[in-house]
Amino acid sequence: MYQLYYAPGSCSLAAHIALEMSGANYESIKLDFRSNAQRENRYLAVNPKGRVPALVCEEGILTENPAILLYLAQQFPESRLAPLNDPFRLAQISAFNAYLSSTVHPAHAHGVRGYRWADDEAAITEMKRKMPEVMTECFALIEGEMFKGPWVMGDEFSIADIYLFTIAQWLEADRVDISRFPKVMDHRSRMRELDVIRKVLALQ
Amino acid sequence: MYQLYYAPGSCSLAAHIALEMSGANYESIKLDFRSNAQRENRYLAVNPKGRVPALVCEEGILTENPAILLYLAQQFPESRLAPLNDPFRLAQISAFNAYLSSTVHPAHAHGVRGYRWADDEAAITEMKRKMPEVMTECFALIEGEMFKGPWVMGDEFSIADIYLFTIAQWLEADRVDISRFPKVMDHRSRMRELDVIRKVLALQ
Repeated sequence: MYQLYYAPGSCSLAAHIALEMSGANYESIKLDFRSNAQRENRYLAVNPKGRVPALVCEEGILTENPAILLYLAQQFPESRLAPLNDPFRLAQISAFNAYLSSTVHPAHAHGVRGYRWADDEAAITEMKRKMPEVMTECFALIEGEMFKGPWVMGDEFSIADIYLFTIAQWLEADRVDISRFPKVMDHRSRMRELDVIRKVLALQ
Repeated sequence: MYQLYYAPGSCSLAAHIALEMSGANYESIKLDFRSNAQRENRYLAVNPKGRVPALVCEEGILTENPAILLYLAQQFPESRLAPLNDPFRLAQISAFNAYLSSTVHPAHAHGVRGYRWADDEAAITEMKRKMPEVMTECFALIEGEMFKGPWVMGDEFSIADIYLFTIAQWLEADRVDISRFPKVMDHRSRMRELDVIRKVLALQ
């Protein structure tokens, strides 16, 4: 039995979808970011970073979407969430997910959590102003160079689709002109139609 | 034969060390960031992100340190760079590396590349001012919660050691008080004494 700590609207949606798709036996524990539950000692004992997702496994606790997604793909090979026997394609998926976690997610965070990198209000406002432009650049690269279609990596669905879908959820709130990204938007629509995704979104 | 595109002083040092430790047959191609070589069309054809590292493999091109390090560990199992047969420990290593790439590296980047997230000079200056504080918080978490010792994950050396070493290289230039982090500093000293690291540092 796994336990997933998650917060509605956050990137933990990716781990949540992967758990559901893997067929794992799990329970989900919601953290209320509005009351800053992720900074309470009770949660910091689970994840000292004070972030989500955190996945409690038998052997210990895992954090960070790229690690959790790959781990679940490996633990549940029958769910076919990654090409486990093809190291190069697996590495390409890891590279795509690393781009989302290390470039795209931080770009987004400048719109709502600029206080991580500046104290001055004017600087935080300036980051928020520029954020849609940076997110647009990231998605232009995904749309034009990285997304193969019909799934992120081509013909086979993978954990890269789960993570891209999660971050693409934020585009309208991030004031990005989604009409520029027809492939990513078509992908998002197809993902939203999957029963398993509907189920997880309803739980958020 | 692999080809590594790298830039001195950048995070591509991690991929460079991993290549050397793996025993792979490779050549390294230096990019001069001062002349903005990473933004020239010739390099954008290799990596449209305009960043390093990029690893040209037989099957295609890989980017992003977490993906490259894990791939090399898998391709060269005899180099024992990761516990390939222990998915949970492997996932913990991936989580550690994901933290470095998605939180610590972006924190550092606010000191030198604030223009990625703001146009206003005052905002860029403010990020630069706060950067040492953010890097200090990250390394306090690594020192206090994440680093097991004597290596990052405990008794066994792994790709997490290579990546931590790479980013710990930047601490003095980032105006971080390194005396607060004796475990990380001892680790860095031991890493620097390895012949293979001396060799790669001499190539930078």
